[in-house]
Amino acid sequence: MTNTVQTAVVGVTGYAGAELARLLLRHPRLKGKAPVFAGRVDPKDMGRGGVPLAEIHPELVDSKGSGQLIQQPFSWELLDDLGVEVLFLATPHQQSREWVPEALKRGLRVIDLSGAWRLTEAANRAVYAFEDDDAELAEATQMQAVYGMPELHRKQIAQAKLVANPGCYATSVILPLKPLVAAGLVDLQRGIVADAKSGVSGAGKAPTAKTHYMYAADNLSAYGVFSHRHTGELLEQIGVDSGEIVFTPHLLPIPRGILSTIYVHFKEPQTRVSVSRVYREFFTGSPMVRLYDHSLPQIQYSVKTSYADIGFQLDSDGRRAVIVSCLDNLLKGASSQALQNFNVMQGWPESEGLE
Amino acid sequence: MTNTVQTAVVGVTGYAGAELARLLLRHPRLKGKAPVFAGRVDPKDMGRGGVPLAEIHPELVDSKGSGQLIQQPFSWELLDDLGVEVLFLATPHQQSREWVPEALKRGLRVIDLSGAWRLTEAANRAVYAFEDDDAELAEATQMQAVYGMPELHRKQIAQAKLVANPGCYATSVILPLKPLVAAGLVDLQRGIVADAKSGVSGAGKAPTAKTHYMYAADNLSAYGVFSHRHTGELLEQIGVDSGEIVFTPHLLPIPRGILSTIYVHFKEPQTRVSVSRVYREFFTGSPMVRLYDHSLPQIQYSVKTSYADIGFQLDSDGRRAVIVSCLDNLLKGASSQALQNFNVMQGWPESEGLE
Amino acid sequence: MTNTVQTAVVGVTGYAGAELARLLLRHPRLKGKAPVFAGRVDPKDMGRGGVPLAEIHPELVDSKGSGQLIQQPFSWELLDDLGVEVLFLATPHQQSREWVPEALKRGLRVIDLSGAWRLTEAANRAVYAFEDDDAELAEATQMQAVYGMPELHRKQIAQAKLVANPGCYATSVILPLKPLVAAGLVDLQRGIVADAKSGVSGAGKAPTAKTHYMYAADNLSAYGVFSHRHTGELLEQIGVDSGEIVFTPHLLPIPRGILSTIYVHFKEPQTRVSVSRVYREFFTGSPMVRLYDHSLPQIQYSVKTSYADIGFQLDSDGRRAVIVSCLDNLLKGASSQALQNFNVMQGWPESEGLE
Amino acid sequence: MTNTVQTAVVGVTGYAGAELARLLLRHPRLKGKAPVFAGRVDPKDMGRGGVPLAEIHPELVDSKGSGQLIQQPFSWELLDDLGVEVLFLATPHQQSREWVPEALKRGLRVIDLSGAWRLTEAANRAVYAFEDDDAELAEATQMQAVYGMPELHRKQIAQAKLVANPGCYATSVILPLKPLVAAGLVDLQRGIVADAKSGVSGAGKAPTAKTHYMYAADNLSAYGVFSHRHTGELLEQIGVDSGEIVFTPHLLPIPRGILSTIYVHFKEPQTRVSVSRVYREFFTGSPMVRLYDHSLPQIQYSVKTSYADIGFQLDSDGRRAVIVSCLDNLLKGASSQALQNFNVMQGWPESEGLE
Repeated sequence: MTNTVQTAVVGVTGYAGAELARLLLRHPRLKGKAPVFAGRVDPKDMGRGGVPLAEIHPELVDSKGSGQLIQQPFSWELLDDLGVEVLFLATPHQQSREWVPEALKRGLRVIDLSGAWRLTEAANRAVYAFEDDDAELAEATQMQAVYGMPELHRKQIAQAKLVANPGCYATSVILPLKPLVAAGLVDLQRGIVADAKSGVSGAGKAPTAKTHYMYAADNLSAYGVFSHRHTGELLEQIGVDSGEIVFTPHLLPIPRGILSTIYVHFKEPQTRVSVSRVYREFFTGSPMVRLYDHSLPQIQYSVKTSYADIGFQLDSDGRRAVIVSCLDNLLKGASSQALQNFNVMQGWPESEGLE
Repeated sequence: MTNTVQTAVVGVTGYAGAELARLLLRHPRLKGKAPVFAGRVDPKDMGRGGVPLAEIHPELVDSKGSGQLIQQPFSWELLDDLGVEVLFLATPHQQSREWVPEALKRGLRVIDLSGAWRLTEAANRAVYAFEDDDAELAEATQMQAVYGMPELHRKQIAQAKLVANPGCYATSVILPLKPLVAAGLVDLQRGIVADAKSGVSGAGKAPTAKTHYMYAADNLSAYGVFSHRHTGELLEQIGVDSGEIVFTPHLLPIPRGILSTIYVHFKEPQTRVSVSRVYREFFTGSPMVRLYDHSLPQIQYSVKTSYADIGFQLDSDGRRAVIVSCLDNLLKGASSQALQNFNVMQGWPESEGLE
Repeated sequence: MTNTVQTAVVGVTGYAGAELARLLLRHPRLKGKAPVFAGRVDPKDMGRGGVPLAEIHPELVDSKGSGQLIQQPFSWELLDDLGVEVLFLATPHQQSREWVPEALKRGLRVIDLSGAWRLTEAANRAVYAFEDDDAELAEATQMQAVYGMPELHRKQIAQAKLVANPGCYATSVILPLKPLVAAGLVDLQRGIVADAKSGVSGAGKAPTAKTHYMYAADNLSAYGVFSHRHTGELLEQIGVDSGEIVFTPHLLPIPRGILSTIYVHFKEPQTRVSVSRVYREFFTGSPMVRLYDHSLPQIQYSVKTSYADIGFQLDSDGRRAVIVSCLDNLLKGASSQALQNFNVMQGWPESEGLE
Repeated sequence: MTNTVQTAVVGVTGYAGAELARLLLRHPRLKGKAPVFAGRVDPKDMGRGGVPLAEIHPELVDSKGSGQLIQQPFSWELLDDLGVEVLFLATPHQQSREWVPEALKRGLRVIDLSGAWRLTEAANRAVYAFEDDDAELAEATQMQAVYGMPELHRKQIAQAKLVANPGCYATSVILPLKPLVAAGLVDLQRGIVADAKSGVSGAGKAPTAKTHYMYAADNLSAYGVFSHRHTGELLEQIGVDSGEIVFTPHLLPIPRGILSTIYVHFKEPQTRVSVSRVYREFFTGSPMVRLYDHSLPQIQYSVKTSYADIGFQLDSDGRRAVIVSCLDNLLKGASSQALQNFNVMQGWPESEGLE
């Protein structure tokens, strides 16, 4: 493990950025070059509620073989000085939209956790309403982006300059559907339903009416019906039209975790064996997907792991399936998938530092 | 309000029975004749955790203008002595299967909260595996049963000797679907999906691995996929075949409440107005259904109320709808629906004692 | 019940104000004169998350025998026009500090739910840092205020022009301690400990870092150690010095409810009987206090009720007691206590509309 | 890290045993000799809810460089065959009472997580009502037991044949109190109060009325007042009389974590600096205790870590302190403390495998 690389994370105070920071600090190949957490980081901020960062995450603050917390405004000069080669952005969409072209120009490889560069088709991007100073540069940058789901695009990721890390909901819907649709099993004319439920961390760290404990606790609510912005990722990556899938997210009264219940009709009757075979073939060489043979995944088994868990049940005549997928929205739905992409980009084992 | 009636509840120590007891005690028309809570009720039992019933539910125990708690084994003589005319059974299925024929023979009107008498078709009943001593008597009893959903069967309930109170999940799926299916709007060939989520009280009061806090909290799990026993109610009451609907229940980490997300395709494009009109016409005269015009129901607004809440969203071309229904599984999903049926049977206003 | 009175509530969009609105609407003596909910009430606001008020609290909005929601800025003319006689203020402290003198001048009787007028001693008020335009008027107003705990000050409340409704924590600590201290049982020199735990609604409706679901859920934290502003109420009402009691609040991961665990040393050994006798005598004629004889109160039995529940346990030699009190912070800790005071002021039964 | 040792865990299906299993599997010094999980382990059992163990904890089941799950009844021959040198017992008290003498006779070193061997004084043991076949052997065994809190007994643990791993509540109360009492700062005559709150996993895995979600959720309750069986550990380890401390546990509606709020009077006024100094000196060389300088610990920062967190606040005259300690009841309160003891016994760094 002599080969290593200098990394930096911007946006370490958000939920996904904090998880990413922890993963990088524990990564066995980065021990030689501690990651840098750049940007104006208020040590009180990350602690949720004002507890100093040094007390709850001493590993980010002190310098004994651990990360280096840079409490200055982000600047390119800073990254140059530190010799950063790979840049993780856990920043807001518009921020990523602005920084990524510059980062690429400077020769950095970028893994962007925002929604800024995930969508190939302009129509699907409309929901974000990006404001680009240089539309041509933006389009050229988008052309370089690879959708960061190693299970689908491992080879392109290995070569990529810019990896657009997938959305959490999107990951939980694409992974269970892509193998079946790609194999031609699904009757798309009868429509796919993806009923997804996510814990509150998915709504971000900003205190809002919807993230207030009194709103979220003892409650369940649907939102973004026919309009959630992860829909574009589903369409592009699964390869279906908007009339062929309905995706409905719900806000669950739990801190983290996503469970998606997915309903498909098959063109021809299937068996447990025939469906399992499709999944096993598709996910051969994909260490971060766990297939459940005898039961269905539950959020409790996926949370705090870097896995996407998939299980399914057929009806008695094999014409329909209910597929259940679970993952941790902050890990496989964000930070551990970013690290997985990073491993692929470095040519390291995909699960390094994730199990 | 001079007219009143003597009522009794058996099974007051379960969740639904306890809610029913509270509702009956507050019912304005029953003030003249306090309800009787019959059966061997351990005062420590209802208190969840051994707190004496007298301390947490004094209204059930003492006799000052309130209910009469009979701490003896249930017997028909007891009911005779007390002059009971209407009997509520919040008992296990098999118990109801045994007691109802005898109750009817003795001239009692019965509202049964169990699953014992809800299903007309023998095939749908198979999942319960009832053990009947006298199969003919059982069949004759079943013939007298009316499915206790006033919004669908108000007239028959008014005359009924035996009301089979609906299941909680079934109520949350039938109410939003029946109007649309009955109006011929739904394209059944493309299939309906009912993705339902329920709080833990729906799993009953018995401590089990699944009702353990450590299992339920911070978790979400699907269960009974393609096999839940409320499915038969859906088919019979909505009037669809088993191939035309998929119903999947999930266990939510909240004490009470059900939210069902329902997906339909329409035969012809609809508008918000056209769908609203169908709902409004169907639920005219149904005070316990609330239609949401501008938003979707959430569990927090329905819990601790006796309402079923229904809202929906159409996609942009009006071909598909996502319908959301919410209710309190212990109230509109059980005890308040029982009281609603009771009001109808007595010829009283349907919402009496429920708002 | 011919006698009635015109009431108004300002601040109906907060948690306590909303509970108060519901209680007033159900109050049997107010049916003749529906309460008015005055001030600029955004119908979307109360619904937590933007659900229109008309859909989740139709009783506040429409006019069929229910409350009248005034969606205009508060003004004294409005109250005059409506003939308001009793004004409930569920407003911020400083707002109450400004409005109450004017209300009294206009002959209104006021029940103020804020902390503006609870404290007799200036030193105890310092923590609020009130900004009074007219210090003399403020002092004169304070002189008229009665601390609104009927169990302690029933007679003065009956005559009061201004009732300062107690704090939620204060209620949960004063009620169990006052009888024992007043009877001279407690060894104050050894110190009293009041370890209190409250649900999140006590932190108010504003979305903050501390009311974020991710902070509150699966957590417990102490705060305001040696500095919480309810401390002054404890000292003044129980009649102890600041060195004789320690009060520590904690934020519980539940929506509502307070449990206070209180530790006292007795001067002389006591028995269960001797302590019970002191409590029973003190609370004779106090219908909203429930004494537990054989067990300890729990939050689940007090929440959604208007009771303060009190139980205790002695050590084997009768020298020390652990006392547990529970109440619903939005009811007996705020709105139902306000209504209790209102009943007393009207000469009505104290528990009217509360059971 | 060439030195290693063969370990075994009995009782891997309980919460603490499962955590211990996970820790051992990740322990860097045990990679050469995978731990054995002995006893009749039903692979379905550990999965809470019947999910096969192989799907949710594959690392315990398969044999690729991981643990060896023995699905046979426990037997001494089995341990002999496997060459086990150190035995962890996560078994019920009485079971440990029976097995430990035999294990010692066979030359095994034992770390027992139950309450069987923690108490030196017979009077304190009475609450467990142990049934010993051979009272003399039991007493002799007890004489060999060392209380397994490295921060207090590091040297004896290093030599011990039998380590009695502390109780979870006891750990959270002893660690913050011992330094202050040992330094002679605390006025014991005025009494110490330890108000402790624990998540539901502390109540064990058996489904009971108290571990039912409907009992624990949205609730808080005190229990074991003046009678909890961890009290004996407090008295013996802190060195106080039963009249000098009150300890009250509460059941929190969270999965895991303990927060203890502790109230002391000082003999002489102290400052933040003077108290901090006492703590820092006491915990020098104790890597698993984190002292908070500027804030108080919260459960969210301690859960899923192996640390005990301690912070405190003084009143303005320095006569009293409120001390807050937090830990994860399944880690520092059970399994990680067991591993910490194990490291000490092996002469390895105390925090090996725990950070």
